[in-house]
Amino acid sequence: MKITSNFDSGNIEIIKADDPADIQLAIRKDNQSDFYQWFHFRLNSPHPQMHKITLTNAAGSAYPDGWQDYQAVASYDRQTWFRVETEYDGKALIINHYPEAESVYFAYFAPYSYERHQDLLHQAQNDYNCQLIDLGETLDGRDMSLLVVGEPDDSKKKIWITARQHPGETMAEWFVEGLLDRLLDEDDGVARSLLAKAVFYIVPNMNPDGSVRGNLRTNAAGANLNREWQNPTLDRSPEVYLVRQKMLETGLDMFLDIHGDENLPYNFVAGAEGVPSYNEHMKQLEQDFKAALLAVTPEFQVKYGYDKDEPGQANLTVATSWVAEQFKCLAYTVEMPFKDNADLPDAAFGWSDIRSMKLGQDSLAAILQVVDKLR
Amino acid sequence: MKITSNFDSGNIEIIKADDPADIQLAIRKDNQSDFYQWFHFRLNSPHPQMHKITLTNAAGSAYPDGWQDYQAVASYDRQTWFRVETEYDGKALIINHYPEAESVYFAYFAPYSYERHQDLLHQAQNDYNCQLIDLGETLDGRDMSLLVVGEPDDSKKKIWITARQHPGETMAEWFVEGLLDRLLDEDDGVARSLLAKAVFYIVPNMNPDGSVRGNLRTNAAGANLNREWQNPTLDRSPEVYLVRQKMLETGLDMFLDIHGDENLPYNFVAGAEGVPSYNEHMKQLEQDFKAALLAVTPEFQVKYGYDKDEPGQANLTVATSWVAEQFKCLAYTVEMPFKDNADLPDAAFGWSDIRSMKLGQDSLAAILQVVDKLR
Amino acid sequence: MKITSNFDSGNIEIIKADDPADIQLAIRKDNQSDFYQWFHFRLNSPHPQMHKITLTNAAGSAYPDGWQDYQAVASYDRQTWFRVETEYDGKALIINHYPEAESVYFAYFAPYSYERHQDLLHQAQNDYNCQLIDLGETLDGRDMSLLVVGEPDDSKKKIWITARQHPGETMAEWFVEGLLDRLLDEDDGVARSLLAKAVFYIVPNMNPDGSVRGNLRTNAAGANLNREWQNPTLDRSPEVYLVRQKMLETGLDMFLDIHGDENLPYNFVAGAEGVPSYNEHMKQLEQDFKAALLAVTPEFQVKYGYDKDEPGQANLTVATSWVAEQFKCLAYTVEMPFKDNADLPDAAFGWSDIRSMKLGQDSLAAILQVVDKLR
Amino acid sequence: MKITSNFDSGNIEIIKADDPADIQLAIRKDNQSDFYQWFHFRLNSPHPQMHKITLTNAAGSAYPDGWQDYQAVASYDRQTWFRVETEYDGKALIINHYPEAESVYFAYFAPYSYERHQDLLHQAQNDYNCQLIDLGETLDGRDMSLLVVGEPDDSKKKIWITARQHPGETMAEWFVEGLLDRLLDEDDGVARSLLAKAVFYIVPNMNPDGSVRGNLRTNAAGANLNREWQNPTLDRSPEVYLVRQKMLETGLDMFLDIHGDENLPYNFVAGAEGVPSYNEHMKQLEQDFKAALLAVTPEFQVKYGYDKDEPGQANLTVATSWVAEQFKCLAYTVEMPFKDNADLPDAAFGWSDIRSMKLGQDSLAAILQVVDKLR
Ligand SMILES: [Ca+2]
Ligand SMILES: [Ca+2]
Ligand SMILES: [Ca+2]
Ligand SMILES: [Ca+2]
Repeated sequence: MKITSNFDSGNIEIIKADDPADIQLAIRKDNQSDFYQWFHFRLNSPHPQMHKITLTNAAGSAYPDGWQDYQAVASYDRQTWFRVETEYDGKALIINHYPEAESVYFAYFAPYSYERHQDLLHQAQNDYNCQLIDLGETLDGRDMSLLVVGEPDDSKKKIWITARQHPGETMAEWFVEGLLDRLLDEDDGVARSLLAKAVFYIVPNMNPDGSVRGNLRTNAAGANLNREWQNPTLDRSPEVYLVRQKMLETGLDMFLDIHGDENLPYNFVAGAEGVPSYNEHMKQLEQDFKAALLAVTPEFQVKYGYDKDEPGQANLTVATSWVAEQFKCLAYTVEMPFKDNADLPDAAFGWSDIRSMKLGQDSLAAILQVVDKLR
Repeated sequence: MKITSNFDSGNIEIIKADDPADIQLAIRKDNQSDFYQWFHFRLNSPHPQMHKITLTNAAGSAYPDGWQDYQAVASYDRQTWFRVETEYDGKALIINHYPEAESVYFAYFAPYSYERHQDLLHQAQNDYNCQLIDLGETLDGRDMSLLVVGEPDDSKKKIWITARQHPGETMAEWFVEGLLDRLLDEDDGVARSLLAKAVFYIVPNMNPDGSVRGNLRTNAAGANLNREWQNPTLDRSPEVYLVRQKMLETGLDMFLDIHGDENLPYNFVAGAEGVPSYNEHMKQLEQDFKAALLAVTPEFQVKYGYDKDEPGQANLTVATSWVAEQFKCLAYTVEMPFKDNADLPDAAFGWSDIRSMKLGQDSLAAILQVVDKLR
Repeated sequence: MKITSNFDSGNIEIIKADDPADIQLAIRKDNQSDFYQWFHFRLNSPHPQMHKITLTNAAGSAYPDGWQDYQAVASYDRQTWFRVETEYDGKALIINHYPEAESVYFAYFAPYSYERHQDLLHQAQNDYNCQLIDLGETLDGRDMSLLVVGEPDDSKKKIWITARQHPGETMAEWFVEGLLDRLLDEDDGVARSLLAKAVFYIVPNMNPDGSVRGNLRTNAAGANLNREWQNPTLDRSPEVYLVRQKMLETGLDMFLDIHGDENLPYNFVAGAEGVPSYNEHMKQLEQDFKAALLAVTPEFQVKYGYDKDEPGQANLTVATSWVAEQFKCLAYTVEMPFKDNADLPDAAFGWSDIRSMKLGQDSLAAILQVVDKLR
Repeated sequence: MKITSNFDSGNIEIIKADDPADIQLAIRKDNQSDFYQWFHFRLNSPHPQMHKITLTNAAGSAYPDGWQDYQAVASYDRQTWFRVETEYDGKALIINHYPEAESVYFAYFAPYSYERHQDLLHQAQNDYNCQLIDLGETLDGRDMSLLVVGEPDDSKKKIWITARQHPGETMAEWFVEGLLDRLLDEDDGVARSLLAKAVFYIVPNMNPDGSVRGNLRTNAAGANLNREWQNPTLDRSPEVYLVRQKMLETGLDMFLDIHGDENLPYNFVAGAEGVPSYNEHMKQLEQDFKAALLAVTPEFQVKYGYDKDEPGQANLTVATSWVAEQFKCLAYTVEMPFKDNADLPDAAFGWSDIRSMKLGQDSLAAILQVVDKLR
C-alpha cells in the first residue's frame, strides 16, 4: 500500500500508511503560509477491503466549517471524479472507501492541471478570434497568460474575467473553460451577440505557481493574491501586479472574479456595495445581472451568500473591490461550492467540474443581458 | 453531369440537365397535393465551372415570398450545410454555384433523414430516464413514435412537444434533437430541475411519411396535418389521430409545436389568443414564456411574427389552437426561419441545423421559468 | 406489440404477431426472385417477458445450412449489434429474446444503410486524395458510385475493389469502410506506400437498389449480379455493365470482390484457378497474397473455403472469374461469415461490423506485400 | 518576447532573447550528468517576423551527428507537432521559424507529459483485463508503475515491454500507448489471439523523474538506466532495481525495450547476438520476429541499424542483453528515429507521435507470429 503526491497539485503528508483500516494523513500547509485545505493524493493498494483514510489535521484548516457535509472526490481514471463517503467529527476528516481499482486519486475537488491549463491557452489561441498575450512571469518562472477574445475596439465594452487567485479553487478554471468554449463557438448566438459588443480579457489561472504546488490560497511567496490588489509588487505578487497593470491599460467595464467557497453549498455572487464609489448605477447593474443569471440557470441563487459590506467598509485589497472602485463598474466575485449545490443536490458527483463548466457557459447569457448598460 | 433525388427526402424534377450553365429543374408537388417548396437533390458534375441551376416553378410554390432573400443550402460531405448564392427573379429561383467537389447536395434546408430519426429514438430509449412508445402506424406503414422523458407522476406537469407536422420543416426535428440532448444530460441543472417537476412527451417527427417522400407540408394522403386536429381520422390523418388520442389519455399542461416559417427571417412564437377559452392566466403564461426565452437567447425575438387572431377567431383545426382550447393551457407554435435570423445574420450558414438545436436547448430554460405556474 | 420493416433494408412478412410467446414471421423473397435469407425488422413490445420469434420459412431460404449454428443480431440503439439466442430446427429459425428496451431491431447481420453509404462517399470525396465518380444509374434511379483514391498514373498499378454485389452481405460494405478509412489516413505507412505505387478504384456498393429494398442477392430486376459479368445489359444489370465498362477503360492489375458467406464460419478467399488463362504467375500471386494476409491477422485462414474449380471450369459470369480471365491478374473473392469466425469466436458479437472493418484495414497490408509483383 | 521552460519536460537555457532575428539558447545538461540533447521550450513573441533561434551548444551534445538532417518539431496547440526549418552548421543548431500564433512550443520530439502518463495508466486500469501494479518509488518520489494485461497463468508466455529508460526518447511512450490501445481492444483479433496465449507486463515509462525534469538520458541521480541492469541499486537506479526484481519474480519469455535513436533515420531493432548464451533458437526467433514485422508495416526495415556485437561481447549492463542472458529468450531493443523514416519520408511531420503509436500497434501482429515458439 502506498500514498503518493508527487504530481501536479499533489498535496499530502503521510503519518501512517501501513494498515488499510487506519491510514493517517495530514494536509500540508501552503508554502510560507499557515493556510491549508487543498489535498490531492494517490492511493495504491492491493487490498480488497474498506480503506479508512483520516485527514488528522482537518480542524486546523483554513475553513474547518467547510468539512461539514463535505464529501471528498475520487477518481480511478482521472476523468470522472465521484464523491466518496466522508465524515467530519470536529477534528478529523474521515474518508471511507472500498477501492474498485488498484490505484485511486483523492482530491478536495476535481483537479485542473497545469498541462490542461497550457492546452486551454494554446487551443484557444488557434481560434482566429482569440489572442494569447504573455503578461510576464510568476515567481517560479511560469507564464502569466491572458486570452483576449474579440477584436478590440474602443466602442466595445471591456469585460475582464479572472479565475483561481486561490489555486485550490479549481472549479474556477473549469468555469472559465466552459465560458471560453462557448465564447469561441461560432454557432452560438449569445457568443456572437456578445462579441459584437464586447471584448473579453480572460485570465484562466491567476496563480499557476500555487496551482502546481498544490496550495489552497497562496502563491510561491505565500501571498494571498486576493489581498494584494491595492499595492501589488513584482517581488511578492507579480501575478496581481501584471494583471492590474494590463487592466489599467485596456480599461474595464465589467469584472468577474471566479472563486470557490469552502462553506456554503450554493452558487452565489458577492458585489462591491462596500466600496466608496458604489452608486445606484452599479446597484442596478448588480440586480440586473443577478436576475439574468437566475433566468438562465437554477444552479444560481441569491438567497444564500456572504453578508454584505457596510457602505464604505469594503476591503480594497480584494480584486472585486479594487476593480469596482477603480473603474466604477459592475464587479462581482462568483463563488461556487466545494460541496454540492443544496438546491439541486447530486449525491454521486456533488458540485463538479462539468457543472462548473456549464455555469461558465450560462454566465455569458447573463452578461449579454447587461452588456448594453455597462457604461 | 447528372441530377438525382432517389434518396431520403429527395425531391426534384429534371427539365434540362445537359449544360452546366443552364440547368433547369422544377420542384415536384407533394403527393396528392398542390403544395410544393421543399427541394433536395444531388448534382454530380465533372465540370470545373460555375453551375447555374434554375428552379423554374418557384413562383407557384406554397410561399413564393419565401424565396425573397433566401439562400439555398448545399453540402459536399452531407454534414456541413452552407449557403450558396441564390436569387429570386419573381418567377424562378436561381442558384449559382461553382462546385468544389464532384458531387454536391442542394436542399431547402439541412435535411433530417429517417435513418437519423430512428437513431434519435433508439439512442434516447437507451437512457434510463426515457421510454420509447409506439403509438401506431402511418399510412405508409411507418411507426408513430413518442418519447416519454421522466418518471410519470400525477403531481408532475405534462409537457408535450411535437415537431415536423410539415415534413419539409426539418429545423423542427433538429430543434427536438437539441432539446432532447439537453433533457437527457444528467449534469444539466435545467434538465434536472425540469424533470423533478414535469414529464415530457415528445414526438420528434409527426409526419415520417411526408419526410421520407420529400414533401413540404403533407402526409402520404395529401393531408396538411396541421389542419386535422379537430377531426382526425385513421384513414386520412392517423398521425394526428394517434397523437391526439394519447394527449387525451395523459393530459397536457403545456404544448409546443415546432415549425419552420418560409417568409420571416426570425424566430418567433404564435399563441392561442384566438381560442374561445383564452383567458388572463394563459395570457400571463405566454408573456412569461416569451420573456424567459428572450432572457436566455438573442436568437429569439417578439417584434416580428404572425398577426394575432381576433378573440374567438382561431382555427381550431390547428394543433396549437386545438390543444389550447382542449386543455386550457399554454400552447405555442414555435417558428424558425428557412432563411436567416435577421437579428443575428450569418452569411455563411444562415439559420442552420446547429442553431436550431441550440434553440431547442435554450427553450428548456424558458420552460423551467414557467413550469410552476402551468396549472 | 408490433413488427415493422418499412425502413432501409427492412424485410419481413408478418404471419402472427399478437402473442409475445409465439410471434410468427416469414422472410420475404427478393423481388422478382426466389432467393431469400436477409431479414431486418423492428419489434415494439411493451411486454416484459421472453419473446419467441419464429421465422417459419427458414428451411426454404437460399442457404438453409446457413442457419446451423447461426445467431441473429439485434440492437437497441442501432449502433451496437449483439447476438441473440437463436436455434434452427431444420424447418424454422427461432429467436428467443427478452427485450431490455421498448423497441429492438433484429437483422441477419449489422445493416449498412443507404444514408451511411452516401455519407461514406461524400466524406471520402472531401479528401484531397479521393475522387467520387458517377458511373450512371441503377434501375431504381440510384447512383452507381466509384471512389478513386490516389493520383492516376500509368506507372501505377490499378487495384479494383467491389463490394456487396449481393446486397444482404452488408459486411462487405463495412469491410470497404475500414479499408477506405485506412487508405485515406495520411499517417499510415501502409496507405502511403500503397498510394505511391497504386491507384484504388473502389465501388463500396455494387447493388444499392437491392440494399435499400432489403434483398439478399438480387437487384431491382431480380438479377444476381454476380452471374452477369459476361454479358451485362443496361436493362437487367446496369450495375455490372457500368462498372465493367469502367474497368475496361482504366485497366486492372488486381481485383478483390467482397462478399459474405452464409455457411462457413470463417474468413477465406476464392480464386480464379478455374479460368482458362490461369497460370503460374497468378498462382504465385494468390499464394503470396494469402501468406501476407495470414501474417497480419489471425482472423484470416486458408484451411476452410470453397472447393477449387477444376482447370477451365470456372463460371465466367462471376465477377472474379471474368476479371481474372479478362485482365490475366490476381483476382479474389473475399468471403466473411454471417456467423462467427470459429477460429476466434466471440459469443457476444460473433463476426461483426467492427471486425469486418478491421479485416478491410488489414487487407491493405497484404496488398502492399504483392503490389510490386502484380504486373 | 520571452522564452520559458518551467513546465513538464521543459529544458533550455537562455543566452540572449531580445532580438527575434538572433535568439541564442543552450540546451541544459541532464542533472548530475554531461549528457544533453533534449530541448523543450516555449516562445512567446508578438513580432510578426522570421525568428532565428540558435541552440549554440549543439555540437557538444550527446549525439552531435543526430543534428544532421534533423528538423525540430513545433506546436501552436500542443496537439499537432509539425517540423520546422532547421539546420546544423557543425556547431550550432539553427531553427528559422515565422510563428503563426503568439505562443509556440519547440521540442526535440513530440513531448509525452507525466499527466498523460498518469492518464494512460489509469484509463488502462479501468479495463477489466488490465491491472495497474505499483512497483515502488523513484528517487524523486514518483511511482514506478507496471500494467499487467491478461489473466496471468503459468501456461501463458510472459512478454515484457519497457519504454523510455532514456526519458528524452518520448516516441517510446507513444509506441506503448499505441500498443496498449490495441491490446485492450476487444474487437481486435490480434489482441484477442495474443491474450489467449500470453500475458503482457508493460512499463510505459521506466524513467518518470528524468521525463519530468526534461533529461535526455538519465534519472534524478544522473544514472543512465540502460547501463544499470547488472547491478542496479535502490540508491542510484531504483527504476531498474524494481523492474528487474519483478521480472525475476514473474519470469519472462520475450522482451522489447523501446527507444529512440538520434542518428539513424529508420526504425530498426538491436538484438542479443553478443550475449554468452546466444543460440540458434534465439537467432531463429529474431529472424522470425523481423520477418513478421516487415510483413505488417513498411515503416520497419532491417537494412540499417547498429553494428552487431561480436559473440560474447555484449554489454550485459544493458537491459536487452541482461534480459536475454538471464532468461535465454527473444530480447530486442526497438529503435525509432528522432528524424524521419527515410524509407517513407514525410516533410511536414517527420517521424511522429502518431506513427510511433501505429508502430506499437503493428508490433503486436509481429509478436503474434512468434508467440507460440517463444519457449
Ligand atoms: Ca488566435
Ligand atoms: Ca429507456
Ligand atoms: Ca476529393
Ligand atoms: Ca483493471
